[in-house]
Amino acid sequence: MLSHASRLGFRLLETDGSARLGEVETPHGIIETPVFMPVGTHASVKSLTTEQLKQLGSDARSTQHPAPSTGPRIILSNTYHLMLRPGVDLVEQLGGIHKFMGWDRAVLTDSGGFQLFSLAAIRKIREEGVEFRSHIDGSPYFLSPETSVQIQTRMGVDIAMAFDECPAYGISHAEVEKSMQLTHRWAKRSLAARTTSSLFGIVQGGVHLDLRKRSVEEIAAMDFDGVAIGGVSVGEPKEEMFEVVDYTAPLLPSDKPRYLMGVGTPEDLVNGVAAGIDMFDCVMPTRNARNGTLFTSSGKIQIKNAKYAADDGPLDPECSCVTCTTVSRAYLRHLFMNDEIAALVYNTIHNVSFYLDLMRAIRQAIALNSFAAYREGFLSRLRQEEKT
Amino acid sequence: MLSHASRLGFRLLETDGSARLGEVETPHGIIETPVFMPVGTHASVKSLTTEQLKQLGSDARSTQHPAPSTGPRIILSNTYHLMLRPGVDLVEQLGGIHKFMGWDRAVLTDSGGFQLFSLAAIRKIREEGVEFRSHIDGSPYFLSPETSVQIQTRMGVDIAMAFDECPAYGISHAEVEKSMQLTHRWAKRSLAARTTSSLFGIVQGGVHLDLRKRSVEEIAAMDFDGVAIGGVSVGEPKEEMFEVVDYTAPLLPSDKPRYLMGVGTPEDLVNGVAAGIDMFDCVMPTRNARNGTLFTSSGKIQIKNAKYAADDGPLDPECSCVTCTTVSRAYLRHLFMNDEIAALVYNTIHNVSFYLDLMRAIRQAIALNSFAAYREGFLSRLRQEEKT
Repeated sequence: MLSHASRLGFRLLETDGSARLGEVETPHGIIETPVFMPVGTHASVKSLTTEQLKQLGSDARSTQHPAPSTGPRIILSNTYHLMLRPGVDLVEQLGGIHKFMGWDRAVLTDSGGFQLFSLAAIRKIREEGVEFRSHIDGSPYFLSPETSVQIQTRMGVDIAMAFDECPAYGISHAEVEKSMQLTHRWAKRSLAARTTSSLFGIVQGGVHLDLRKRSVEEIAAMDFDGVAIGGVSVGEPKEEMFEVVDYTAPLLPSDKPRYLMGVGTPEDLVNGVAAGIDMFDCVMPTRNARNGTLFTSSGKIQIKNAKYAADDGPLDPECSCVTCTTVSRAYLRHLFMNDEIAALVYNTIHNVSFYLDLMRAIRQAIALNSFAAYREGFLSRLRQEEKT
Repeated sequence: MLSHASRLGFRLLETDGSARLGEVETPHGIIETPVFMPVGTHASVKSLTTEQLKQLGSDARSTQHPAPSTGPRIILSNTYHLMLRPGVDLVEQLGGIHKFMGWDRAVLTDSGGFQLFSLAAIRKIREEGVEFRSHIDGSPYFLSPETSVQIQTRMGVDIAMAFDECPAYGISHAEVEKSMQLTHRWAKRSLAARTTSSLFGIVQGGVHLDLRKRSVEEIAAMDFDGVAIGGVSVGEPKEEMFEVVDYTAPLLPSDKPRYLMGVGTPEDLVNGVAAGIDMFDCVMPTRNARNGTLFTSSGKIQIKNAKYAADDGPLDPECSCVTCTTVSRAYLRHLFMNDEIAALVYNTIHNVSFYLDLMRAIRQAIALNSFAAYREGFLSRLRQEEKT
């Protein structure tokens, strides 16, 4: 079957090597790609109000310095967590996930497949779907391609993900192949269940390039609105992950958005873009914020380190977020050492802004056809930081 | 000794019964009174960034509906906590408490007297001062009238409090009297140590009206910039507390700000104003926010209550804070039930805004000479709520 034009209205604006500059049009606005999607597992990007979220990062088009903030254009939430609490009936009754959390921009939800893998809940995988028990109260649930897509659609998300099985790292080629074939059958059923939300297919195949190739062929032949690389960053070494990404990304349809799921570090984002990826999500900026690991233009820092106790400089002098423009490293360390909740808020504001601004810089570099030089500069600075 | 004009430039603008409308001019701006000071123990009003804090509550002068936010004009912080962490040397080195926390409005600090009482640290009270051990690491510290005032001054606070002893509720008249006399001697020494920060004296005397009267006479005769009623809300029944407040407040100098320390509920604020109090502070709005107890114009609610699970209305339809104008009770309950940090942020935004807006309404009522009617309406609504 030929793929028809994505209902998302994906436009590829520029290419620079394999790096792509594009736009994804959703019912809740246009998303410039490459894009990083902050993770809001329970319909909340952890530590932030929705109003704060809207004000993160810098305006890509602004000529002001520092650029005004405009916030992310899309976030990711999770079918698994929302179906347990508050439940899909409630989210639907309350007007959908956008109204529920006061967010008028785009939302993508994962299908639950990865959570059923990563939470290792009491679960039983059958052809029909997955029986599992809630990690909260042990009550029984069932997710299938049909129910997952229905739930995502009922919550009113802009982009739903197909229901997939994510194989563990380290199992045999034969086992990964069997799991991949189940994912393909589930992909067809997910697609058949699609109604109003756009739907992305997910390529699996573990670290086996032959399986990745076959999975791309199967998934690309289906009428999805975008294609994701799933089953990475599940414990494999970073080199193996990028062997898969570098091999798989160029095989994906060029006329659809390409999404690398659950990745990653700033370096991973730069390298993912270089491989031709358009979309990313990861809990790293929000989770690291909560344990005091902060990203800066001169490398990662641990804010609890004693050397910041009297440091009256901004967390990152190159950043224009609220944290970097209103308080010092010394104050951030003070809040963190005193277990102040505001420490988590300030740290999250910065880390997510850092990711958003990184993607903005990447998009600008592609637009200027200078992404290779940008990437080389970024990686060389990173190597220098690691030495110091 | 005659009291000279307060260096704070206190202006009494209106009286309405015993209620007073005034302005306190500080080096960091004018404070309209009666005022509630949010508590920022560790130089952080818990759960909020300084930027968020600046945007709480509604603009008293605005004719827009809803009124734009302007935030509190003064907050309270604590000598005891700041001297332990990060330490006064550091706060001073970093440019003072305002620069440290990115706050350009007024700051009042408690002297440490109350914390040494309430934390019941390992402490030894002598005429000279109090030896105590840090509740964090057991290291030894010393606070006296001179060191407390010096610390507050070095941190650059707008209003420092005299170092006092806060007697426990339930001890004998003779013991309270002895403690009060120590507070008076310490008040003289605090005043002698005053340099650049303004300094408020503290009236003690427990629940004994004869001692309160003597304490007012002693403290009012000293050259303080304002006078506080201390040693209330320390375990005594509410009726006894207001017996003390109603008796003591009218005895205080009318040409200086009158501050009721550590009080209280919304009802307490209304009754305190009726007694002639100008300034209040309390951890109640921020602490209650963290345990999900939210103040609304129709009474206190527990947001975790199941009846809010599907409630798509605003937390308080009469409030124009970010929480009430962007998300629903159902979403707030969802965040709270999932231990989301954003729950604490949203709850704190509302509770502190509620307190600030209450004080705004009180000031408006006094300005219109209708405070008695306002108070009667407020208390009668409260009685109705308690019945339902």
